Amino acid sequence: MANNYAVSITAENRTGLIRDLGSVCAELNADINHLETSTIENTARIDIEIEYDGAVENLVEKIRKIPGVTSSLIHETSREIFGKRVIVIGGGAQVAQVAMGAVNEADRHNIRGERISVDTIPLVGEVNLARAVEAVARLPRASILVLAGSIMGGEITQSIKKIQTAGIPVICLKMAGSASDAADLVITDPIQAGVMAVMHVSSVGVFDIERVKGKEF
Amino acid sequence: MANNYAVSITAENRTGLIRDLGSVCAELNADINHLETSTIENTARIDIEIEYDGAVENLVEKIRKIPGVTSSLIHETSREIFGKRVIVIGGGAQVAQVAMGAVNEADRHNIRGERISVDTIPLVGEVNLARAVEAVARLPRASILVLAGSIMGGEITQSIKKIQTAGIPVICLKMAGSASDAADLVITDPIQAGVMAVMHVSSVGVFDIERVKGKEF
Repeated sequence: MANNYAVSITAENRTGLIRDLGSVCAELNADINHLETSTIENTARIDIEIEYDGAVENLVEKIRKIPGVTSSLIHETSREIFGKRVIVIGGGAQVAQVAMGAVNEADRHNIRGERISVDTIPLVGEVNLARAVEAVARLPRASILVLAGSIMGGEITQSIKKIQTAGIPVICLKMAGSASDAADLVITDPIQAGVMAVMHVSSVGVFDIERVKGKEF
Repeated sequence: MANNYAVSITAENRTGLIRDLGSVCAELNADINHLETSTIENTARIDIEIEYDGAVENLVEKIRKIPGVTSSLIHETSREIFGKRVIVIGGGAQVAQVAMGAVNEADRHNIRGERISVDTIPLVGEVNLARAVEAVARLPRASILVLAGSIMGGEITQSIKKIQTAGIPVICLKMAGSASDAADLVITDPIQAGVMAVMHVSSVGVFDIERVKGKEF
């Protein structure tokens, strides 16, 4: 069973750093799940998360030997720190209410040792919303989407179907437009929508969206 | 001036895929800023964001020629879709209030074409909070942190100092403990704390935390 590790690396900024890092990981059969780089002047900072079934110290030692690498530090993964993500997208007033329900419910779960975060963006316009919904499938650790608005349809509905195929369930507030027809669950009260979204992603809760699929509350 | 591109790649899952992707990018002098992989059965999905000053079509064509790659699709970057991130960490009740202020203010900005998202996690305990605060420096596009609680200090204060060094300003609610002494700004009302955090990261607003540094409202 492979374990997940997060490693922060600093290095002199040079071409081929990622290639060399990829080589070391391929050599040891370690899978890079996540990589983030930033550069300040001549120093590159690379944060990676890897799945590896060997001793992480060996891997880190090999990374340290990559030309230009000046330091590497093992720490907790973002899944251990920030956990699963409930994503809330829509109109400001309603996003704020869904967030309130979700944050308060996540608090109750996180106090008992889970890790659930609530990430939001208020947006306007069909195209903007459709692109953001579609992009949820590319967000690391995104586990469920709540659409909080008064009218959504058209391209947004197409994006909902795409992310459902990618394994992300969608809760919609009760609203005008075709979006709610495509949703896994329709909820009238934004606070409850936030709470139920968290309950669904929780690994201790008994609530499962599959069991109420297509219903409306 | 290099441009940013996001490319989603699907491929047969095999060892060395990231190394080969790194090689192609190194060859063309394209910088990988972000990489995220997920695997379903034998298919790997790789989302990358790259900085490149050439024609992106050339790069994508070379990526398509990597053995095992079955498709590649250019789309908007996560910065274009989700923008700068205001991060809110602390106790559930207060995180929800800060989020309300921040989401409503972000709505006003995003309506005018900006992209600001509000990402939160309710947490309890000095060590948990300290680790989460420190990890904000590793979150992509994190632009400011709001600490929303009633008492924070010790290790949390050390983490605040670390992320400030990494360029992330910190707003604290007025509260007990040493955290607020280290903050760039102390605000009593959680709604206002959320609003000011968004105003600071906005590229059109006139508010700059540097100009009120160390003050308390």
